[in-house]
Amino acid sequence: MEAFSDGVFAIATTLLVLDLRVPTTAPLLAGLLQEWPVFVAYIISFSFILIMWVNHHWMFQHIVRVDSTFMLLNGLLLLGITVVPFPTNLVATYVLTPDQTTATAIYSGWFFIIAIFFNLLWLYASGRGRLLSEHDANAGLAEVITRRYRWGPPCYFLAFVLAFVWVPASLGLNVLLALYYVIPRERMVRLPGRRVSPSQ
Amino acid sequence: MEAFSDGVFAIATTLLVLDLRVPTTAPLLAGLLQEWPVFVAYIISFSFILIMWVNHHWMFQHIVRVDSTFMLLNGLLLLGITVVPFPTNLVATYVLTPDQTTATAIYSGWFFIIAIFFNLLWLYASGRGRLLSEHDANAGLAEVITRRYRWGPPCYFLAFVLAFVWVPASLGLNVLLALYYVIPRERMVRLPGRRVSPSQ
Amino acid sequence: MEAFSDGVFAIATTLLVLDLRVPTTAPLLAGLLQEWPVFVAYIISFSFILIMWVNHHWMFQHIVRVDSTFMLLNGLLLLGITVVPFPTNLVATYVLTPDQTTATAIYSGWFFIIAIFFNLLWLYASGRGRLLSEHDANAGLAEVITRRYRWGPPCYFLAFVLAFVWVPASLGLNVLLALYYVIPRERMVRLPGRRVSPSQ
Amino acid sequence: MEAFSDGVFAIATTLLVLDLRVPTTAPLLAGLLQEWPVFVAYIISFSFILIMWVNHHWMFQHIVRVDSTFMLLNGLLLLGITVVPFPTNLVATYVLTPDQTTATAIYSGWFFIIAIFFNLLWLYASGRGRLLSEHDANAGLAEVITRRYRWGPPCYFLAFVLAFVWVPASLGLNVLLALYYVIPRERMVRLPGRRVSPSQ
Repeated sequence: MEAFSDGVFAIATTLLVLDLRVPTTAPLLAGLLQEWPVFVAYIISFSFILIMWVNHHWMFQHIVRVDSTFMLLNGLLLLGITVVPFPTNLVATYVLTPDQTTATAIYSGWFFIIAIFFNLLWLYASGRGRLLSEHDANAGLAEVITRRYRWGPPCYFLAFVLAFVWVPASLGLNVLLALYYVIPRERMVRLPGRRVSPSQ
Repeated sequence: MEAFSDGVFAIATTLLVLDLRVPTTAPLLAGLLQEWPVFVAYIISFSFILIMWVNHHWMFQHIVRVDSTFMLLNGLLLLGITVVPFPTNLVATYVLTPDQTTATAIYSGWFFIIAIFFNLLWLYASGRGRLLSEHDANAGLAEVITRRYRWGPPCYFLAFVLAFVWVPASLGLNVLLALYYVIPRERMVRLPGRRVSPSQ
Repeated sequence: MEAFSDGVFAIATTLLVLDLRVPTTAPLLAGLLQEWPVFVAYIISFSFILIMWVNHHWMFQHIVRVDSTFMLLNGLLLLGITVVPFPTNLVATYVLTPDQTTATAIYSGWFFIIAIFFNLLWLYASGRGRLLSEHDANAGLAEVITRRYRWGPPCYFLAFVLAFVWVPASLGLNVLLALYYVIPRERMVRLPGRRVSPSQ
Repeated sequence: MEAFSDGVFAIATTLLVLDLRVPTTAPLLAGLLQEWPVFVAYIISFSFILIMWVNHHWMFQHIVRVDSTFMLLNGLLLLGITVVPFPTNLVATYVLTPDQTTATAIYSGWFFIIAIFFNLLWLYASGRGRLLSEHDANAGLAEVITRRYRWGPPCYFLAFVLAFVWVPASLGLNVLLALYYVIPRERMVRLPGRRVSPSQ
């Protein structure tokens, strides 16, 4: 399940490049500069999927069992991730038109939905230590993770609401959230199974 | 063979997003709502490939040998899976036009063909315990799996036939089949090779 | 190197689906039937990449060392494989037009080039047992493989030449070659590291 | 992190094929020959990503720890890599138009930025042996790698500057850099964990 999920994350990240379109209006530089929202949306979506992947990977490090509900919730999360190139395309196409509110609301709203799926997956896995190892240290750690990811849904919901007030504020909050979450809090970790000898 | 198959499944799942098109008719929201069959088809196809992947993965857990016939049948199944974004696109494009019957019949018919490929693969592998381990417990388990997947082809054939009667019934049956199969019946399993200690 | 190569093969296989286009001429069924060369080209290219992947994987099972020449030749082979969706698209677009000879010659010619890259890679690796293990059994086996793949380049060259004579003969030979190579000659093999116990 | 990065590299490599477009002007052969800059750009970008992947993979062989700064820098590198199909498309579209200078400058400039990201990642990891193993042999090896990759950014900056002087010189330098870096300097290495026995 994890290898398949990893593949889906990696492919969704890379498919975002198909949202970048070669401008057809001359001169080229002016055409590219006009397209700036496309690049902002690209960076936000790239960071969002990367963050989701890091968190997903991290979550799987703590899970020792899977059951059918977990697999269903994981499937929902993957569904959410694979769709991301579509709202990215929407916001890139419509952000400078009168439809900018609709496009931005769908964009931020989709991130909100994914954040909910992610929290459901984690809360289900960690609830009463259901799928985690019984190791003592786990309880405290699970709580730290729970506390950290609890803020995702309300923040992305705020970005969703802001789209109806002022579109730049909604996109700006998305940038801030990406910056906040992209920096892992974990201290240095030693890679497991990594050989210490430099000669391969 | 399994890693390659996993990759093919993951990529086919993710490529489905290319079937979602940004509407060009204003206003945006109305354009998206008009596109609703695209989203229904997306969810059906996503679930279908996900289910196929889970089953395929599960099947490989029980196989201890491969021979050339098995590899040929596996190649046929992968061919079927990689094509899925195409009939999905067909049904999404034509479901609201007079060609809806043709498009839906091809869509459901393709799922029928994949279900046959999958059953051929499994029946060949499990037949007379050909490629399974000789473990005693296997015979019973293989029978459970055989019994469960036996119903795929007739159900998808029914969806194919329904396309000629009433298109919504065919698509609805596809949704029901996705819901039915997406929920795994297996009880909780311990992940093999997963470390119990939470510290990585 | 092998995992990266596997990924490239899997993605190239799956990207072929983007060559299948939804017909825009009504009625749908007639439009699809007119597109039949697209589907023939799809199946040929899918089989070709699948065969190349199986052979590539098989080759890596016998290699115990890599050097810089090998990596360069492997890079050339991967370059060849990733391009395959392009000549496939060419032949599918032009096979029913006066440009069918050019398109088919490029298509078959490209397979010929890949077959050469593959043979170069294998001959370099196996030449004087350069990158193979020193195991006694290897020499005989390497010879069997060498003998088998030696016929790829002349056969695909024949398909290239036939494109200038009669296009259907060139495509037909491609189908025959795919059928011939898709069926592995190896007898049943036990999967390494596969658990015999069915309970996971 | 490495498996995810590998996936991103493999997919970015393969997505380049979408930049190859079937010509619509008759006759086909003339149309293809007119498109020659597309193929040159394809080969440059393919080689560039392949080289980056080999180097990235090689770098990870020497790293025994990761921290949050490293993960951030790695994320920046991956962002750079996934975007490559876009400037490739730009240069392929505009290289024969008056906008060729802009397109080539962006193309070479983007490679310059990726080269900087790569050096930042490596310098951070190897600086004061921060993330490398403490093995004695490492210090010397790290210095060799540092010396080798130090020349990437100035060379690609030169290609960027040359775009404003004479476009063919900029593209030519890219070809030379690809040729120079594509040939690994490392001597023959024995694949770790590779079975010596040929029978699988």
